[in-house]
Amino acid sequence: MKSKAVFYHAGCPVCVAAEQQVAAALDTSRYDVEIVHLGESKARIGEAERAGVKSVPALVIDDSAFHINHGADLAALKS
Amino acid sequence: MKSKAVFYHAGCPVCVAAEQQVAAALDTSRYDVEIVHLGESKARIGEAERAGVKSVPALVIDDSAFHINHGADLAALKS
Repeated sequence: MKSKAVFYHAGCPVCVAAEQQVAAALDTSRYDVEIVHLGESKARIGEAERAGVKSVPALVIDDSAFHINHGADLAALKS
Repeated sequence: MKSKAVFYHAGCPVCVAAEQQVAAALDTSRYDVEIVHLGESKARIGEAERAGVKSVPALVIDDSAFHINHGADLAALKS
């Protein structure tokens, strides 16, 4: 069974770079990679927070949150 | 030809988690992944700095530096 990897972003330039170079480099034969734009899918901000995401871009793999550089704080996406 | 991905770390807990969950998730059919312990290979700190690495753990893919969470500043490894 594949592991789950969720890449959370908000469309910012830092996010786009991380998506194109890190999220895209994951092994899709071992990981189901889902890309979530939290600016467009605000309903999923809570899920990201519960996974430990503080800022975007972030990658959640097997329930661990990995913040990749810094684009925007999650709090800024709520307004 | 495979792209190059270099994961720089310093053996810290944050580094180990990122290595086991992010670096290990990269697609090795497309990326040559090299793991560099900067505490043990201080000669490579300069190379990491030139790639834009400010702290570890960090992943350099195609000349772009991606800092993954924060374990230690590069400056702290020089002493």
